[in-house]
Amino acid sequence: MASQPTTNEPTIRFATEEDVPTILSLIHELAAYEHATSSVLATESTLLKTLSFPSSPTTGYAKTLLIYAASETPAPKCAGMALYFTNYSTWRGAPGIYLEDLFVRPEYRGRGYGIALLKRLARETKAIGGERLEWSVLKWNGPSIKFYEGMGAKMMSEWVGMRVDDEALEKMAGMEGGGKG
Amino acid sequence: MASQPTTNEPTIRFATEEDVPTILSLIHELAAYEHATSSVLATESTLLKTLSFPSSPTTGYAKTLLIYAASETPAPKCAGMALYFTNYSTWRGAPGIYLEDLFVRPEYRGRGYGIALLKRLARETKAIGGERLEWSVLKWNGPSIKFYEGMGAKMMSEWVGMRVDDEALEKMAGMEGGGKG
Repeated sequence: MASQPTTNEPTIRFATEEDVPTILSLIHELAAYEHATSSVLATESTLLKTLSFPSSPTTGYAKTLLIYAASETPAPKCAGMALYFTNYSTWRGAPGIYLEDLFVRPEYRGRGYGIALLKRLARETKAIGGERLEWSVLKWNGPSIKFYEGMGAKMMSEWVGMRVDDEALEKMAGMEGGGKG
Repeated sequence: MASQPTTNEPTIRFATEEDVPTILSLIHELAAYEHATSSVLATESTLLKTLSFPSSPTTGYAKTLLIYAASETPAPKCAGMALYFTNYSTWRGAPGIYLEDLFVRPEYRGRGYGIALLKRLARETKAIGGERLEWSVLKWNGPSIKFYEGMGAKMMSEWVGMRVDDEALEKMAGMEGGGKG
Protein backbone atom coordinates (compact mmCIF):
# COMPACT_ATOMS: atom_id res chain seq x y z
CA MET A 1 0.00 0.00 0.00
CA ALA A 2 1.40 3.39 -0.96
CA SER A 3 1.29 6.02 1.74
CA GLN A 4 -1.24 8.75 1.18
CA PRO A 5 0.62 12.05 0.89
CA THR A 6 -1.14 14.96 2.50
CA THR A 7 -0.13 18.58 2.72
CA ASN A 8 0.82 17.92 6.35
CA GLU A 9 3.38 15.32 5.41
CA PRO A 10 6.98 16.42 5.90
CA THR A 11 9.67 16.19 3.25
CA ILE A 12 12.97 14.48 4.08
CA ARG A 13 16.05 14.96 1.93
CA PHE A 14 19.81 14.60 2.19
CA ALA A 15 21.71 17.74 3.14
CA THR A 16 24.02 19.30 0.56
CA GLU A 17 27.05 21.56 1.01
CA GLU A 18 24.69 24.56 0.98
CA ASP A 19 22.94 23.23 4.09
CA VAL A 20 26.07 23.26 6.26
CA PRO A 21 25.14 26.53 8.06
CA THR A 22 21.75 24.98 8.88
CA ILE A 23 23.39 21.78 10.16
CA LEU A 24 25.73 23.79 12.39
CA SER A 25 22.79 25.75 13.83
CA LEU A 26 20.94 22.51 14.59
CA ILE A 27 24.05 21.05 16.27
CA HIS A 28 24.28 24.14 18.49
CA GLU A 29 20.57 23.98 19.35
CA LEU A 30 20.83 20.27 20.25
CA ALA A 31 23.91 20.91 22.40
CA ALA A 32 22.02 23.64 24.26
CA TYR A 33 19.21 21.14 24.95
CA GLU A 34 21.80 18.70 26.32
CA HIS A 35 23.32 21.47 28.51
CA ALA A 36 26.60 21.17 26.60
CA THR A 37 26.91 24.24 24.38
CA SER A 38 30.60 24.62 25.14
CA SER A 39 31.24 21.11 23.79
CA VAL A 40 30.57 22.16 20.19
CA LEU A 41 33.90 22.52 18.42
CA ALA A 42 32.49 21.89 14.92
CA THR A 43 32.61 24.76 12.43
CA GLU A 44 31.21 25.14 8.91
CA SER A 45 34.66 24.33 7.60
CA THR A 46 35.11 21.09 9.60
CA LEU A 47 31.59 19.93 8.67
CA LEU A 48 32.25 20.62 4.97
CA LYS A 49 35.44 18.59 5.12
CA THR A 50 34.10 15.60 7.06
CA LEU A 51 30.44 15.05 6.10
CA SER A 52 29.17 13.12 3.05
CA PHE A 53 27.00 14.94 0.55
CA PRO A 54 25.06 13.62 -2.45
CA SER A 55 27.65 15.22 -4.77
CA SER A 56 30.43 13.00 -3.31
CA PRO A 57 28.76 10.11 -1.50
CA THR A 58 31.91 8.03 -1.02
CA THR A 59 33.89 10.70 0.84
CA GLY A 60 33.10 11.91 4.33
CA TYR A 61 32.14 10.04 7.45
CA ALA A 62 28.45 10.77 8.07
CA LYS A 63 25.29 11.72 6.21
CA THR A 64 22.62 14.19 7.22
CA LEU A 65 18.90 13.98 6.57
CA LEU A 66 16.93 17.23 6.89
CA ILE A 67 13.18 17.36 7.47
CA TYR A 68 10.88 20.14 6.30
CA ALA A 69 7.24 20.96 6.85
CA ALA A 70 6.50 21.02 3.15
CA SER A 71 3.30 22.99 3.38
CA GLU A 72 4.97 26.07 4.80
CA THR A 73 5.16 29.20 2.71
CA PRO A 74 7.20 31.02 1.62
CA ALA A 75 10.33 28.82 1.94
CA PRO A 76 10.03 26.34 4.80
CA LYS A 77 12.50 26.53 7.67
CA CYS A 78 14.38 23.31 8.39
CA ALA A 79 12.42 21.51 11.12
CA GLY A 80 15.10 19.06 12.21
CA MET A 81 17.78 16.58 11.24
CA ALA A 82 19.13 13.08 11.62
CA LEU A 83 22.91 12.73 11.28
CA TYR A 84 24.14 9.15 10.95
CA PHE A 85 26.93 6.81 9.83
CA THR A 86 27.15 3.11 9.05
CA ASN A 87 28.40 0.72 11.72
CA TYR A 88 29.03 -3.03 11.68
CA SER A 89 28.06 -6.13 13.61
CA THR A 90 30.56 -8.98 13.55
CA TRP A 91 27.98 -11.36 15.01
CA ARG A 92 25.65 -10.60 12.13
CA GLY A 93 28.33 -10.15 9.47
CA ALA A 94 26.25 -7.17 8.40
CA PRO A 95 26.30 -3.39 8.50
CA GLY A 96 23.87 -1.22 10.38
CA ILE A 97 23.12 2.44 10.88
CA TYR A 98 24.13 4.44 13.92
CA LEU A 99 22.13 7.59 14.50
CA GLU A 100 24.57 10.09 16.00
CA ASP A 101 22.17 13.03 16.38
CA LEU A 102 18.41 13.35 16.09
CA PHE A 103 16.97 16.80 16.63
CA VAL A 104 13.62 18.44 15.95
CA ARG A 105 13.33 22.17 16.62
CA PRO A 106 10.97 22.89 19.54
CA GLU A 107 8.42 24.72 17.38
CA TYR A 108 8.07 21.62 15.17
CA ARG A 109 7.63 19.05 17.93
CA GLY A 110 4.49 17.01 18.41
CA ARG A 111 4.06 16.47 14.68
CA GLY A 112 5.74 13.05 14.46
CA TYR A 113 8.87 14.38 12.74
CA GLY A 114 11.17 12.41 15.05
CA ILE A 115 9.30 9.24 14.17
CA ALA A 116 9.39 10.15 10.47
CA LEU A 117 13.19 10.48 10.63
CA LEU A 118 13.55 7.16 12.50
CA LYS A 119 11.34 5.39 9.94
CA ARG A 120 13.42 6.82 7.11
CA LEU A 121 16.59 5.56 8.83
CA ALA A 122 15.03 2.11 9.26
CA ARG A 123 14.43 2.11 5.50
CA GLU A 124 18.00 3.29 4.83
CA THR A 125 19.24 0.46 7.06
CA LYS A 126 17.30 -2.13 5.07
CA ALA A 127 18.43 -0.52 1.79
CA ILE A 128 22.12 -1.19 2.56
CA GLY A 129 21.41 -4.75 3.72
CA GLY A 130 21.75 -3.58 7.32
CA GLU A 131 20.31 -5.41 10.29
CA ARG A 132 20.44 -2.92 13.14
CA LEU A 133 19.49 0.70 13.70
CA GLU A 134 21.20 2.00 16.81
CA TRP A 135 21.74 5.19 18.79
CA SER A 136 22.51 6.36 22.31
CA VAL A 137 20.40 8.32 24.74
CA LEU A 138 21.21 10.13 27.97
CA LYS A 139 20.10 7.95 30.88
CA TRP A 140 18.27 10.85 32.55
CA ASN A 141 16.13 11.31 29.44
CA GLY A 142 13.35 8.96 30.58
CA PRO A 143 10.65 10.32 28.24
CA SER A 144 12.86 9.68 25.20
CA ILE A 145 13.75 6.16 26.35
CA LYS A 146 10.05 5.37 26.83
CA PHE A 147 9.26 6.80 23.40
CA TYR A 148 11.98 4.72 21.73
CA GLU A 149 10.97 1.54 23.55
CA GLY A 150 7.42 2.13 22.33
CA MET A 151 8.81 2.00 18.79
CA GLY A 152 10.44 -1.38 19.42
CA ALA A 153 13.93 -0.29 20.50
CA LYS A 154 15.76 -2.32 23.15
CA MET A 155 17.90 -0.63 25.80
CA MET A 156 21.43 -2.09 25.71
CA SER A 157 21.86 -1.66 29.45
CA GLU A 158 24.46 -4.42 29.87
CA TRP A 159 27.01 -2.45 27.83
CA VAL A 160 28.91 0.74 28.63
CA GLY A 161 30.88 2.89 26.21
CA MET A 162 34.58 3.68 26.64
CA ARG A 163 36.20 6.72 25.02
CA VAL A 164 39.79 7.87 24.48
CA ASP A 165 40.21 11.45 23.26
CA ASP A 166 42.37 14.57 23.58
CA GLU A 167 45.58 14.05 25.58
CA ALA A 168 44.80 10.39 26.26
CA LEU A 169 44.48 9.73 22.51
CA GLU A 170 47.74 11.58 21.78
CA LYS A 171 49.48 9.57 24.45
CA MET A 172 48.09 6.24 23.22
CA ALA A 173 49.00 7.03 19.60
CA GLY A 174 52.51 8.07 20.60
CA MET A 175 53.32 5.14 22.85
CA GLU A 176 56.42 3.18 22.02
CA GLY A 177 56.60 -0.45 21.06
CA GLY A 178 54.14 -2.98 19.73
CA GLY A 179 52.04 -2.94 16.64
CA LYS A 180 54.49 -2.25 13.84
CA GLY A 181 53.63 -2.78 10.22
CA MET B 1 62.22 8.21 18.54
CA ALA B 2 61.75 5.07 16.52
CA SER B 3 60.62 2.03 18.42
CA GLN B 4 63.25 -0.68 18.80
CA PRO B 5 62.00 -3.81 17.08
CA THR B 6 62.80 -7.01 18.89
CA THR B 7 62.03 -10.57 17.96
CA ASN B 8 59.28 -10.48 20.57
CA GLU B 9 57.48 -7.64 18.89
CA PRO B 10 54.22 -8.62 17.20
CA THR B 11 53.32 -7.80 13.63
CA ILE B 12 50.02 -6.11 12.87
CA ARG B 13 48.56 -6.05 9.35
CA PHE B 14 45.23 -5.56 7.63
CA ALA B 15 43.26 -8.71 6.89
CA THR B 16 42.75 -9.69 3.25
CA GLU B 17 40.05 -11.84 1.65
CA GLU B 18 42.23 -14.90 2.35
CA ASP B 19 41.99 -14.21 6.09
CA VAL B 20 38.19 -14.47 6.24
CA PRO B 21 38.19 -18.02 7.67
CA THR B 22 40.56 -16.82 10.41
CA ILE B 23 38.33 -13.81 11.15
CA LEU B 24 35.27 -16.05 11.43
CA SER B 25 37.10 -18.36 13.84
CA LEU B 26 38.11 -15.41 15.99
CA ILE B 27 34.51 -14.10 16.00
CA HIS B 28 33.30 -17.51 17.21
CA GLU B 29 35.98 -17.68 19.90
CA LEU B 30 35.10 -14.18 21.14
CA ALA B 31 31.38 -15.04 21.20
CA ALA B 32 32.14 -18.12 23.28
CA TYR B 33 34.03 -15.92 25.75
CA GLU B 34 30.98 -13.62 25.94
CA HIS B 35 28.68 -16.66 26.48
CA ALA B 36 26.90 -15.87 23.21
CA THR B 37 27.96 -18.48 20.68
CA SER B 38 24.45 -18.82 19.30
CA SER B 39 24.44 -15.10 18.44
CA VAL B 40 26.97 -15.55 15.62
CA LEU B 41 25.10 -15.43 12.33
CA ALA B 42 28.12 -14.29 10.28
CA THR B 43 29.47 -16.67 7.64
CA GLU B 44 32.53 -16.52 5.39
CA SER B 45 30.26 -15.32 2.63
CA THR B 46 28.67 -12.45 4.60
CA LEU B 47 32.09 -11.34 5.90
CA LEU B 48 33.51 -11.34 2.35
CA LYS B 49 30.64 -9.20 1.14
CA THR B 50 30.60 -6.66 3.98
CA LEU B 51 34.18 -6.15 5.20
CA SER B 52 36.76 -3.80 3.68
CA PHE B 53 40.01 -5.25 2.43
CA PRO B 54 43.19 -3.53 1.19
CA SER B 55 42.29 -4.58 -2.37
CA SER B 56 39.06 -2.52 -2.27
CA PRO B 57 39.39 -0.05 0.62
CA THR B 58 36.34 2.06 -0.31
CA THR B 59 33.82 -0.78 -0.25
CA GLY B 60 32.70 -2.60 2.85
CA TYR B 61 31.78 -1.34 6.29
CA ALA B 62 34.60 -2.36 8.63
CA LYS B 63 38.33 -3.14 8.59
CA THR B 64 40.16 -5.87 10.41
CA LEU B 65 43.66 -5.74 11.88
CA LEU B 66 45.31 -9.08 12.64
CA ILE B 67 48.19 -9.50 15.06
CA TYR B 68 50.90 -12.16 14.83
CA ALA B 69 53.73 -13.24 17.09
CA ALA B 70 56.32 -12.72 14.38
CA SER B 71 59.02 -14.84 15.94
CA GLU B 72 57.00 -18.05 15.71
CA THR B 73 58.12 -20.78 13.35
CA PRO B 74 57.07 -22.23 11.03
CA ALA B 75 54.11 -19.99 10.03
CA PRO B 76 52.71 -18.05 12.98
CA LYS B 77 49.12 -18.59 14.02
CA CYS B 78 46.98 -15.46 14.17
CA ALA B 79 47.11 -14.24 17.80
CA GLY B 80 44.15 -11.89 17.70
CA MET B 81 42.27 -9.16 15.91
CA ALA B 82 40.74 -5.71 16.11
CA LEU B 83 37.70 -5.13 13.89
CA TYR B 84 36.65 -1.47 13.57
CA PHE B 85 34.77 1.15 11.58
CA THR B 86 34.81 4.94 11.45
CA ASN B 87 32.24 6.89 13.40
CA TYR B 88 31.54 10.62 13.67
CA SER B 89 31.17 13.29 16.33
CA THR B 90 28.94 16.24 15.45
CA TRP B 91 30.24 18.20 18.43
CA ARG B 92 33.77 17.84 17.14
CA GLY B 93 32.92 17.97 13.44
CA ALA B 94 35.41 15.13 13.13
CA PRO B 95 35.51 11.37 12.54
CA GLY B 96 36.68 8.82 15.02
CA ILE B 97 37.22 5.09 15.20
CA TYR B 98 34.86 2.63 16.85
CA LEU B 99 36.40 -0.67 17.85
CA GLU B 100 33.68 -3.26 17.38
CA ASP B 101 35.65 -6.32 18.47
CA LEU B 102 39.01 -6.78 20.16
CA PHE B 103 40.10 -10.34 20.78
CA VAL B 104 43.40 -12.01 21.71
CA ARG B 105 43.46 -15.79 21.77
CA PRO B 106 43.95 -17.14 25.32
CA GLU B 107 47.35 -18.69 24.56
CA TYR B 108 48.67 -15.27 23.44
CA ARG B 109 47.44 -13.24 26.40
CA GLY B 110 49.76 -11.48 28.82
CA ARG B 111 52.06 -10.32 26.04
CA GLY B 112 50.59 -6.84 25.56
CA TYR B 113 48.90 -7.68 22.25
CA GLY B 114 45.63 -6.03 23.28
CA ILE B 115 47.56 -2.86 24.08
CA ALA B 116 49.46 -3.12 20.79
CA LEU B 117 46.16 -3.27 18.86
CA LEU B 118 44.71 -0.32 20.79
CA LYS B 119 47.86 1.75 20.14
CA ARG B 120 47.64 0.94 16.46
CA LEU B 121 43.99 2.04 16.43
CA ALA B 122 44.91 5.28 18.20
CA ARG B 123 47.42 5.90 15.39
CA GLU B 124 44.80 5.02 12.74
CA THR B 125 42.43 7.48 14.43
CA LYS B 126 45.01 10.28 14.24
CA ALA B 127 45.86 9.31 10.64
CA ILE B 128 42.30 10.02 9.45
CA GLY B 129 42.10 13.30 11.38
CA GLY B 130 39.98 11.54 14.00
CA GLU B 131 39.53 12.78 17.55
CA ARG B 132 38.03 9.84 19.41
CA LEU B 133 38.72 6.13 19.77
CA GLU B 134 35.69 4.39 21.23
CA TRP B 135 34.35 0.96 22.03
CA SER B 136 31.89 -0.75 24.37
CA VAL B 137 32.49 -3.20 27.16
CA LEU B 138 30.19 -5.50 29.11
CA LYS B 139 29.48 -3.92 32.49
CA TRP B 140 30.29 -7.15 34.32
CA ASN B 141 33.76 -7.17 32.80
CA GLY B 142 35.40 -5.19 35.62
CA PRO B 143 39.00 -6.27 34.88
CA SER B 144 38.72 -5.00 31.29
CA ILE B 145 37.18 -1.69 32.37
CA LYS B 146 40.01 -1.17 34.87
CA PHE B 147 42.57 -2.03 32.20
CA TYR B 148 41.04 0.43 29.71
CA GLU B 149 40.78 3.19 32.31
CA GLY B 150 44.44 2.66 33.07
CA MET B 151 45.15 3.47 29.42
CA GLY B 152 43.27 6.77 29.66
CA ALA B 153 39.79 5.66 28.53
CA LYS B 154 36.74 7.30 30.11
CA MET B 155 33.62 5.29 30.90
CA MET B 156 30.59 6.92 29.21
CA SER B 157 28.26 5.88 32.02
CA GLU B 158 25.71 8.65 31.46
CA TRP B 159 24.72 7.18 28.06
CA VAL B 160 22.86 4.00 27.18
CA GLY B 161 22.58 2.40 23.76
CA MET B 162 19.26 1.74 22.02
CA ARG B 163 18.89 -0.90 19.30
CA VAL B 164 16.19 -1.77 16.76
CA ASP B 165 16.64 -5.06 14.89
CA ASP B 166 14.80 -8.08 13.50
CA GLU B 167 10.99 -7.75 13.55
CA ALA B 168 11.11 -4.30 15.15
CA LEU B 169 13.33 -3.03 12.31
CA GLU B 170 11.04 -4.56 9.67
CA LYS B 171 8.07 -2.95 11.31
CA MET B 172 9.74 0.46 11.59
CA ALA B 173 10.91 0.35 7.97
CA GLY B 174 7.47 -0.66 6.76
CA MET B 175 5.45 1.89 8.70
CA GLU B 176 3.18 4.11 6.69
CA GLY B 177 3.34 7.85 6.38
CA GLY B 178 5.99 10.48 7.05
CA GLY B 179 9.41 10.91 5.58
CA LYS B 180 8.84 10.76 1.86
CA GLY B 181 11.46 11.83 -0.64
